[in-house]
Amino acid sequence: MSLSNIVLTAPDWVDGELRRLPPHLHTVRDRMLAVIRFSQINVERDTGGPFAAGVFERDTGKLVVIGVNRVVANQCSSAHAEVMALSFAQRMLKTYDLGAEGLPDLQLVVNWRPCAMCYGAVLWSGVRSLAIAGDDPEMEKLTGFDEGPIRTDWAEQLNARGIEVIKPVARDEACEVFRLFREKGSLVYNGRGAKKAGEK
Amino acid sequence: MSLSNIVLTAPDWVDGELRRLPPHLHTVRDRMLAVIRFSQINVERDTGGPFAAGVFERDTGKLVVIGVNRVVANQCSSAHAEVMALSFAQRMLKTYDLGAEGLPDLQLVVNWRPCAMCYGAVLWSGVRSLAIAGDDPEMEKLTGFDEGPIRTDWAEQLNARGIEVIKPVARDEACEVFRLFREKGSLVYNGRGAKKAGEK
Repeated sequence: MSLSNIVLTAPDWVDGELRRLPPHLHTVRDRMLAVIRFSQINVERDTGGPFAAGVFERDTGKLVVIGVNRVVANQCSSAHAEVMALSFAQRMLKTYDLGAEGLPDLQLVVNWRPCAMCYGAVLWSGVRSLAIAGDDPEMEKLTGFDEGPIRTDWAEQLNARGIEVIKPVARDEACEVFRLFREKGSLVYNGRGAKKAGEK
Repeated sequence: MSLSNIVLTAPDWVDGELRRLPPHLHTVRDRMLAVIRFSQINVERDTGGPFAAGVFERDTGKLVVIGVNRVVANQCSSAHAEVMALSFAQRMLKTYDLGAEGLPDLQLVVNWRPCAMCYGAVLWSGVRSLAIAGDDPEMEKLTGFDEGPIRTDWAEQLNARGIEVIKPVARDEACEVFRLFREKGSLVYNGRGAKKAGEK
């Protein structure tokens, strides 16, 4: 009747790609470009949706980890890129609170704004900074993904809880991957079932 | 620099407790009382926060799984009861979409309203029904937990996406566990750090 645990996996190419990156990425743009590269590989290799998220030390740019969307591969609707990256970072740093005393300020870098779920996941994660490639309707238009009913004041709500929001960063480059995703006709999973990219 | 997977675990008492339950719980109240019992054991055994969530077949009451909050034990801020239960159910049914064709309508039963993150997790899970013990300020008042900035029309938004919301169910029994949690002085993890139950 039960299982005793849930295993969420990264694609096997992630370790190699992480090793190819310099240990520090000094500008937010460079961090975003690395994240966007992971989103692109995830699409090219069919290992998940067109989303990636990275956790970095905000002030030094030291890379902690980059995660990618794994909803379909892991049969888990919560396995969005943000949740994967935050969970990996928390495991690596051995804390459920990335804002815990003794840790440097951490930044989550994502190739689009958080969906209705990931908005809350960011809130509870302890990160102090969120950098996103964009927050306009272009991503939903290009891919068919649904971000869900999000508070219009979502960024202000993050600010009010001590999380800065930096946007847009490398928006055009992020949208290129969404176009690639659409052209491949990859699977779009959404709350009410799955459809192909571009379908209504 | 990386880990290849994240393992989320249930406490070791869960399997035994699941086996003690009848295979079907016909009323929503009986389902909620089972969920509340899991929340209570989670507090008593110090295996997580005072929250539990169950997935049931809506029409027959067949139990799929009950999950409990594991944020601290799993060092994962996303390991809320709802995410655990939904992820276990998806793994057991081998799909990221609990609303997929061929599945019976599934219901998530939780001992309080979803937080800002779990609201989105419910949306993407594919469940067709959400039953909650309560949605008023009592839980936050008793425990010190923060549900985050939630849309005031959150229930209507779920309805609009084909998810019914049933409330309140066994509210007093749910609040008893929150009182127990407060009396124990258990750890309250929140977005901006940890504090003890009852502390400001």
